[in-house]
Amino acid sequence: MLSEFDLIKRYFRRARSGHAVLGIGDDCALLAPTPGMQTAVSTDLLIEGRHFFAGADPRMLGHKCLAVNLSDLAAMGAKPVGFTLALSLPGADPEWLEAFSSGMFALADQHDCELIGGDTTRGPLAICITVFGEIAPGHALRRDAARAGHDIWISGTLGDARLALAGYWKEIALDGEALAHAALRMHQPTPRIELGRALAVVPIAHAALDISDGLIGDLGHILEASRVGATLDVDALPAGPALAGQSLALRRRFTLAGGDDYELCFTAPASQREAVIATAAAAGTPVTRVGTIDAQPGLRLVDAAGKSLEMDVQGWDHFSGQ
Amino acid sequence: MLSEFDLIKRYFRRARSGHAVLGIGDDCALLAPTPGMQTAVSTDLLIEGRHFFAGADPRMLGHKCLAVNLSDLAAMGAKPVGFTLALSLPGADPEWLEAFSSGMFALADQHDCELIGGDTTRGPLAICITVFGEIAPGHALRRDAARAGHDIWISGTLGDARLALAGYWKEIALDGEALAHAALRMHQPTPRIELGRALAVVPIAHAALDISDGLIGDLGHILEASRVGATLDVDALPAGPALAGQSLALRRRFTLAGGDDYELCFTAPASQREAVIATAAAAGTPVTRVGTIDAQPGLRLVDAAGKSLEMDVQGWDHFSGQ
Repeated sequence: MLSEFDLIKRYFRRARSGHAVLGIGDDCALLAPTPGMQTAVSTDLLIEGRHFFAGADPRMLGHKCLAVNLSDLAAMGAKPVGFTLALSLPGADPEWLEAFSSGMFALADQHDCELIGGDTTRGPLAICITVFGEIAPGHALRRDAARAGHDIWISGTLGDARLALAGYWKEIALDGEALAHAALRMHQPTPRIELGRALAVVPIAHAALDISDGLIGDLGHILEASRVGATLDVDALPAGPALAGQSLALRRRFTLAGGDDYELCFTAPASQREAVIATAAAAGTPVTRVGTIDAQPGLRLVDAAGKSLEMDVQGWDHFSGQ
Repeated sequence: MLSEFDLIKRYFRRARSGHAVLGIGDDCALLAPTPGMQTAVSTDLLIEGRHFFAGADPRMLGHKCLAVNLSDLAAMGAKPVGFTLALSLPGADPEWLEAFSSGMFALADQHDCELIGGDTTRGPLAICITVFGEIAPGHALRRDAARAGHDIWISGTLGDARLALAGYWKEIALDGEALAHAALRMHQPTPRIELGRALAVVPIAHAALDISDGLIGDLGHILEASRVGATLDVDALPAGPALAGQSLALRRRFTLAGGDDYELCFTAPASQREAVIATAAAAGTPVTRVGTIDAQPGLRLVDAAGKSLEMDVQGWDHFSGQ
């Protein structure tokens, strides 16, 4: 049986990338913040059977755990610096650890984000990552910064992760290829770091968040924090490649209230439309304009013809259920 | 049923203490590091049935979860700034949440340490806190800084938490009063923040860590990181008030390899003895000199008469068991 310390040494201690003054192996890690920059911090706890299936592929799981945290940095426009990993494991399975750590480090290396410390314990499989980033004062994309008249934008596509879930749950019949495509979006979300940073640097965008619990619920947080309303063109919402082949009703439902999308929803003045498109192209991330922020509170859904839609959908809540 | 957002708002969102530029409620929290200071980071994951009993008193649990993290800051000599809380709960029980958050915030307020963000989800009871502190460059008390000839010191007392466990497990017969005293040390550890900061500021101490898995194992980390050995006077180890009334054999075993002590073990040059004692008195934390760092690798245990002891004890390992 691997000891706790051997486990850390073998799978999680690496040659230093140089962000941390002191990395894994002491009571605390030490970071030297870049002078004048603020530190952005986010934490996410993922539980087996709740956020991922029992027996989930460990390489994809390693990717996803870090991806959902990086996605929070992206939503603030922050540059990733480092992260801590607290891991509860039923046992120390070398194959699982090798795959999990490879998946996690592959994504970490893409974003030059260093594992600086952590904790391991035996227990039900649970993974808590806390991520650190840097951003210049006043540049963070905050939920309370949406203003009436601004455009609402979405990065990438929505709904494929929810479609995969529907396939797994047999809510709908999905052929093997469609499920495979959808599942990839569920298990391997892409944190929109480059886009978030580019939108914040100028700044082009004002408010932003990452869509993790379904667009309709998450956009609601922007509206509440900014004390504004919005009109959303439901048929403009970019459906994922697998979802695009499904019925209109399903496309609407899963793009609006899917969950696990990890795309950015952001607002920007209409005067910035060309800048948004150019920035997104430079970041290699497609963006779609899907609605408008209104002074009038509440969220109004309209179809492609501008006709009002009444839909009974809501975002994901971990305590009320969906 | 409380929603996730109501739960956060009701129990965890508070008037701002002013450390964070942006606190709970956005994708990330934002901290403005004090210019010239380094950031110390530590994370701990506590699992029901592993780190605390099922049905543990939620107020004491709230204290303990934060205390074990603050103890890591203390061991570096860092000043607490803030923390994130990721919480997996079987359900949203208002009474439990009220008591848990009160216990946690009472300790947080003592150390002016602000809850800046978090995550809540439904699942087995698990608590992951990541804590942030500040320290001046070069002042951190590191595990690799012990030097031959230095004294080894211990704060407070050891072994009472382990004695409580022995009482709960019926390893030994403990009367109700002794168990109550011992249990208090198990459930309400005191992070030695003031002492750690005072030892680092001058600096008086060199190496330090907090004793969480038993002195013998934890001191081993200092010896390994510093490439030195040590001689420990087993009978000089300060036993907790409840343990002090037990047999010599039990006192030796539980002070050496108890676990859950959350006291500091630190090293300092012999020339600093008076300074250590004065600093400890000013911080209101008793300290005891218990041994010496040696150039020769390995840990030697001796009794009060200086006679070599052979003892089969080891520290706690979460994967090998004890």
